[in-house]
Order: sequence, then structure tokens, then C-alpha cells
Amino acid sequence: MLNKPLILITNDDGITAPGIKALVNAVKHLGEIIVVAPDAPQSAMGHAVTISKPLRLAQTDLYGEILSYQCSGTPADCVKLAVDKVLHRKPDLVLSGINHGSNSSINVLYSGTMSAAMEGCIEGIPSAGFSLCDFAYEADFTLAAKVAAKVAENILKENLPKGVLLNVNIPKIPEELLQGIKICRQANAKWEEDFDERLDPNGRKYYWLTGKFVNYDLGQDTDEWALANNYVSIVPVHFDLTAHQVISDLNKWKF
Amino acid sequence: MLNKPLILITNDDGITAPGIKALVNAVKHLGEIIVVAPDAPQSAMGHAVTISKPLRLAQTDLYGEILSYQCSGTPADCVKLAVDKVLHRKPDLVLSGINHGSNSSINVLYSGTMSAAMEGCIEGIPSAGFSLCDFAYEADFTLAAKVAAKVAENILKENLPKGVLLNVNIPKIPEELLQGIKICRQANAKWEEDFDERLDPNGRKYYWLTGKFVNYDLGQDTDEWALANNYVSIVPVHFDLTAHQVISDLNKWKF
Repeated sequence: MLNKPLILITNDDGITAPGIKALVNAVKHLGEIIVVAPDAPQSAMGHAVTISKPLRLAQTDLYGEILSYQCSGTPADCVKLAVDKVLHRKPDLVLSGINHGSNSSINVLYSGTMSAAMEGCIEGIPSAGFSLCDFAYEADFTLAAKVAAKVAENILKENLPKGVLLNVNIPKIPEELLQGIKICRQANAKWEEDFDERLDPNGRKYYWLTGKFVNYDLGQDTDEWALANNYVSIVPVHFDLTAHQVISDLNKWKF
Repeated sequence: MLNKPLILITNDDGITAPGIKALVNAVKHLGEIIVVAPDAPQSAMGHAVTISKPLRLAQTDLYGEILSYQCSGTPADCVKLAVDKVLHRKPDLVLSGINHGSNSSINVLYSGTMSAAMEGCIEGIPSAGFSLCDFAYEADFTLAAKVAAKVAENILKENLPKGVLLNVNIPKIPEELLQGIKICRQANAKWEEDFDERLDPNGRKYYWLTGKFVNYDLGQDTDEWALANNYVSIVPVHFDLTAHQVISDLNKWKF
């Protein structure tokens, strides 16, 4: 590469979150960084895009010499808008995160962090999302930042197959307990929902989504197993949702 | 089945949309119907769920004798809330739609309609989403409704493998032109974004997401090919996003 790699950084917790600051600091030696991130938290937005209202984009000085913009849209909007309106050329890498909280197993579907990385991948840009299994504002991103830098270096060096992005989750442990980095498959796990039913001051019901995460998967090759055993998990993710193995069976149906 | 099948119906265009009314009418002979749908349009919400604010749920009389509820959340919220708070038992079928506009190929990622069906599937319920390739309010749902009934009948009779749902798209054509129903894979296509940049009355820029849909896939086994050739497309969809074929290559990376 003649020029320095151009790296777009975004997230779903918003441009002021500690996790995105840690990510910028972790990889700024690897290339030219531009930050385009939501102006407010957008967790659990899934792959939402904004079509019913217009978007705002405003430059910020949050990152000193590094160009940064806040956007009124979703994480996926940020990537679309950055590629179309902010960047002077197609970036070499899209990095999303570091998310405050896990995006392992089924959470990949609900994750704004991962949808931003997926949008980068759809645009044909090598992309990865990073999440630390710690929801706290004051979470320690030291280990996660080191992992993000290593993964970014590897992507720039080895590249990724077309249509594949990485879902990287970092356990909440001190660095000395880390067992390594494991390439995994997405565990078969889910949220067992439970809505917390309350009454407002006018006596009308409302509901808070709560739930318990349950792992049904006994495999030792899953992201959940890796995280529970002090490994960083990396799941290669693609966006062809076709269940190819089912096509021949469905062809027997009579319509 | 001793009892009549219990069928949960939802959508992303909102509970008053013509498409969901057409779906209810199309399948009401197949079982006991309960409608739980958003109280306002939720298109392009992807797999968003509502965690930062509480949800409201209110009974409506929009469907006469059929129990119906409107919910302030996303399509995925509707399914979660219905299963946990509305239904007296786990439903036998979740049907989502009929969406006003295509959810073929890459649109499955952005689709609230499909995320509701996927949420049903995650809950272990046979599920399908239906979309008519016509955005118009006054779209003719006659053909789409017949297709939805046939697909629902088949699912109740044949069942679906665990973890697999159906993405059903109906072309905008008169019934006499229909060539049949085709089981397909998701086409490799994408939106080439273009943001429409405007100035508000105060002279500040804002952006509307627009774009052109481009199909890069020459395969005749794709949903895009089927729709362009007057077939209904059915893609079996799963939510294991792992790109399994890439795991062995990534194991060669040095961290």
C-alpha cells in the first residue's frame, strides 16, 4: 500500500463512549483514522437504517487531530453516510466498537456494533466489530484495545474473504488470565424474555424488556465456550442468510 | 393437532396497513388468529429491540372478533411481547407481513418484517415473512394473500426444520402471469447508496438516504431472478451467521 491505510471507526454506544475512544487510540498507529459515529447511544438497533427522516452530520473536535463526525442516525447509517459523503476514498478497513457489552452468539442479530461492521462488509470493505463483555461505563478497555489492534493488523496484512467480517468479543478478565484468541462458530443460545410489567402514575401498564441469556450449545468450538474459558472469541460472519441445506427439502412441498 | 393452530400475526408497516389486513383474511380459516403489531410504521428497523424505553401494549377492535393488540415497539418487540404477555400458549405459527415492498436478497437484513419472523424462529416457532414487491398503499394483495395461505398451510402440514424460517416475496404482477413458486437462495445484490443533500430553512445541511438496487448475481437460483421472471421466491433463512468455511483459514493468523 503506497498510502497509509484509511480506517473508518464507528460504534453504537455513541461518539462520546469510552469504548470508541479506546479503539481509536489502539489503532491510530496503523493508518489514517476517521471517526463517524452516532451522536447518541444506539444499542440494540440491529441493522436499522433511517428512511423516514433526514440525517444530520456534524464535525466534532472530540479526537483532536483525528477527523471526527457525529451523525443523527443508526450505526449502519453512519457507515453509509461516511462512505458516501465524508471519506475522500473507499476506506481500507471499517472497525466498530469497542462495544460496552457482549455481542457473542445470538446477540450478533441485535447488535448495532455488528450491523455497522456488516454494512462496511456489504460495501466491500474489510470490517470487524469489537465488544467487551462488560456493560459498565468505567469498564477497563486495556485488553480489548490490544486485541483490537492485533486483529486490525492481521486484517490489513491477510485481508478477509469477500462478504466475510469478524465478530470479536473480549472477556471481562485481567490480561494475565487470558488463554488466547480462538476462532469460533456462533453458539446456539438465546434470550429467555421476561417483561417487567409496571404501572405508570396514571395507572396504565407499561413493560420493560428483561431476560436471561441461556446457552443451549455444548460445543467447545463456540464463542460462548471461548469467552467462558477466558479466550477472546472471533467468529467469521457473513450476510448470506440462506439455509442452503434446506432448499432441496422445500422443493418437495406442494403448492 | 387437537386444538386449532394458534397463529400470531405481525408486521412492520403497522397494525392499520392494508398488507396485514390481507394476511389476516388470507389465513383466518387455518386457525385461531391473534394480531400483535406495531402501532406505527417500523420499516427498515432491522432486528432492533427496545431496551432504552418501556413498551406500551393496547387492545384494538380493528379486526372484529379476532383479538388484536398494538404495541409501541419494533416488530421484534411485538413477537417477544406477544409470546411473553399476550398469548395463553406458545403459538404454532408466526406470520409477518404482508410487507409493502420487497424483502428479497440483501433487504432481508434491513427488514423489520423479516426480523419479526426471525424472532418467532428464535423462539422455536415455525415462522415466515411475506412481502409484496409494491410499495403503494393501494397495492393489490390478492395474489400475495393466496400465496401466504398456501405457504402457511404447508408449514402447518410439513413443519420447518429447527432454526429455519421462510422469506417469501411476491412479484407485482396479475395472477395470470405467475409462473409458479420457486425455492431460492438469497441473491448477492446491494444498495448503491446516494445521499440527497439539502439545506434546511436555517441553511444547515441534512441528508436523505436514497439509492439504487444493484444485482451482481447472475444465478438463476436466486430470489431476484425468480421475481424478475414472474415467480414467487421463497428463501429458507437461518440465523447462524457463522461463515463456517472461513474458520480454518483464520486459524492460520498469527496473533
